[in-house]
Amino acid sequence: MLLIKTTDKNFKESFEELLGRGAMDMEHVASIVGTIIKEIRNEGNEALKRHIAKFDRWEVRFDEDLMVDPVDMKKAYDALDTDLREALHLAYERIKNYHEKQMPKSWIDFDKAGNTLGQKVTPVDRAGLYIPGGKAAYPSSLLMNAIPAIVAGVDEIVVTTPTPDNEINHLLLAAAHLCGIEKMFKVGGASAIAAMAYGTETIPKVDVITGPGNIFVATAKKLVYGDVNIDMIAGPSEIGILADTSAIPEYLAIDLLSQAEHDEMASSILITPSLEQAEAVREVLYMELSKLEREMIARKSIEERGAIIVTETMDEAIELMNKIAPEHLEVMTANPFELLPKIRHAGAIFLGAFTPEPIGDYMAGPNHTLPTGGTAKFYSPLNVENFLKKSSIIAMSEDGINEIGEACALLAKTEGLTAHEKSVRIRLK
Amino acid sequence: MLLIKTTDKNFKESFEELLGRGAMDMEHVASIVGTIIKEIRNEGNEALKRHIAKFDRWEVRFDEDLMVDPVDMKKAYDALDTDLREALHLAYERIKNYHEKQMPKSWIDFDKAGNTLGQKVTPVDRAGLYIPGGKAAYPSSLLMNAIPAIVAGVDEIVVTTPTPDNEINHLLLAAAHLCGIEKMFKVGGASAIAAMAYGTETIPKVDVITGPGNIFVATAKKLVYGDVNIDMIAGPSEIGILADTSAIPEYLAIDLLSQAEHDEMASSILITPSLEQAEAVREVLYMELSKLEREMIARKSIEERGAIIVTETMDEAIELMNKIAPEHLEVMTANPFELLPKIRHAGAIFLGAFTPEPIGDYMAGPNHTLPTGGTAKFYSPLNVENFLKKSSIIAMSEDGINEIGEACALLAKTEGLTAHEKSVRIRLK
Repeated sequence: MLLIKTTDKNFKESFEELLGRGAMDMEHVASIVGTIIKEIRNEGNEALKRHIAKFDRWEVRFDEDLMVDPVDMKKAYDALDTDLREALHLAYERIKNYHEKQMPKSWIDFDKAGNTLGQKVTPVDRAGLYIPGGKAAYPSSLLMNAIPAIVAGVDEIVVTTPTPDNEINHLLLAAAHLCGIEKMFKVGGASAIAAMAYGTETIPKVDVITGPGNIFVATAKKLVYGDVNIDMIAGPSEIGILADTSAIPEYLAIDLLSQAEHDEMASSILITPSLEQAEAVREVLYMELSKLEREMIARKSIEERGAIIVTETMDEAIELMNKIAPEHLEVMTANPFELLPKIRHAGAIFLGAFTPEPIGDYMAGPNHTLPTGGTAKFYSPLNVENFLKKSSIIAMSEDGINEIGEACALLAKTEGLTAHEKSVRIRLK
Repeated sequence: MLLIKTTDKNFKESFEELLGRGAMDMEHVASIVGTIIKEIRNEGNEALKRHIAKFDRWEVRFDEDLMVDPVDMKKAYDALDTDLREALHLAYERIKNYHEKQMPKSWIDFDKAGNTLGQKVTPVDRAGLYIPGGKAAYPSSLLMNAIPAIVAGVDEIVVTTPTPDNEINHLLLAAAHLCGIEKMFKVGGASAIAAMAYGTETIPKVDVITGPGNIFVATAKKLVYGDVNIDMIAGPSEIGILADTSAIPEYLAIDLLSQAEHDEMASSILITPSLEQAEAVREVLYMELSKLEREMIARKSIEERGAIIVTETMDEAIELMNKIAPEHLEVMTANPFELLPKIRHAGAIFLGAFTPEPIGDYMAGPNHTLPTGGTAKFYSPLNVENFLKKSSIIAMSEDGINEIGEACALLAKTEGLTAHEKSVRIRLK
């Protein structure tokens, strides 16, 4: 694992290289994905079936086969061990509780002239959730995507998930039952995104598509953006940790590894003003690494994309972390809340020794769908607003328009728009 | 102007055709725009200069020539007639006042176990505003894009605007001075979007790009989306009007025309349950049309993209309008507020006889940058949130993690992520 100091001669170059971590080369898949989208738009279910036969290796004989039977969701839910079912319920409740606090209200505001201005908040009619399947089936992703849509009040929620060899993860089915999902379709990749963006005979067109996926899914989301809304374009997972000497090296090491085990492309970066801490963490990390079930994946991620950076001060550490803008940021210092005002860019911020990042993946309540690759500089975590949109409300009184109408007509005239000018002027006394 | 009834035999087809109004064929310009973006990324200012020479017909000799001198903004402001300056100030204050009401607050929330969950709201570091120039220079667009960024607390605001023949609209300069803009660059089109998305020697890279533009600008925004955030992908302007017999035909006619004068591609649609009203409006509209300065543009828009639809009931009218999801919606009925709960999809809603759409373009306060082409089903008006992003805050207590840690570890284990599991488990008592 790379260990560098900000005082190193070539630090700037090494750091720049780290910053390039999230770059995804979408261009080389864009034409493949573009073709897939066109086929779905032109041929609908026929193309879907062909893509499923090719990528997931099973034959869709009837259109109905595309859909998961809600009875199977209930069966999977009923068959869960009690402790697993309770864990799922606990997660559901905590996530729901947090997202309810995000709900914005429609508002109106009045002035002395009798005008009313405001903002109406309305859920989208239909949301489409993409949930990875097969080996990387994460039932928690279903909860994290469905619950904000449910809280937002979306009428119809559509789920797509790939089912390689026509097999589907049972915990995913159980989670779908818990979320009350009625429309879940067995299709993945760019085909699923295109089907939700434009609709097919079986899969309804949605207004917003959210959810994680590989480079094909990310590229498809980018290509359909504008015809529907999307949450974000996400890449490999990341963790950044800010730590001082108060942190326990074993905690830091295993937290770094918990990102690394996700994906060879995942990146785990510790920044600390303490060289001693840095070296201690590195030592424990390699001990823990060899004990992991997913050791191979984690090792590649740590070797190729992991780093420990030693700074001169904590302020310098924070400054570097803001440049990285990590998806997950752990603040493992003696007084983590004190650093919060200085932290500008991170998807989710985990404060203190008892807040390991994985608690946020499942249970804490906030969403685990987070901006990656530095996009926390402009994207937010998935939240209820992704499933809502606003309309401005304007109601002028007769006094109100007389008060500001002349000024308005003047600006319209100056911009050369005389019908605009007249539309205001005919209302004036 | 097309006048159709919902009882017409071929109504469905005619209506579907109207719904297709906003479709933009981006594909045919995508490769041109893609090339422009690549040139800017590879060559920076050199490419910018070449594009300006080609599209705006003037030679940029030095890099500094790309930038508007803030002294010129002040001069333009000082040279304004008093009434125009006052109109600009009034607009500025009203827009600022409205957008201040949109500002979300960071929040934290506590539970009995001593956990703290919350959401931190942070402005983006740098915003880029695209403001059309030349013949279609709209100083009001500068106010509408800059003010939400200012209210959001963005540190650095960058403006780009095309300057054909190196000439720049004086009211635009004055508005820039009023908004305190310090970095304004004389470049337009896809080049400007690329320059702000990736940076050049002179133009800084931004985090978010907002603002209206033609098909090249819209396509460039779509292509850079993901590397930066954008507000929306906007097309030609639109108005929808819901009216009953209480509305004054002359008002309705001129309001329809005020959209039509924008652009030949603009669309103006009146929906009313009253055939009498429909016919009266059509008659007045043609009388007014011939008096307009921009008659040619408005006539083409009205003939090719305007429509009056007569329904059987007001509920049916609202239902159709929700399908259209117009950028601007006027509700010109006896009790417009009563219809508000039923209106699901519109960029901005104008209620009552004294609220013509143009009052919202300049003066009312809400933003005039609005979703077009039916995208009000999922996009919001430009607002302060476009210049903000959120980070989740999670701080578990020792009691807190002990309460939910086992359930979390179980879910992690079930998903096959053992480092996740361990990261939680080592914190438990």
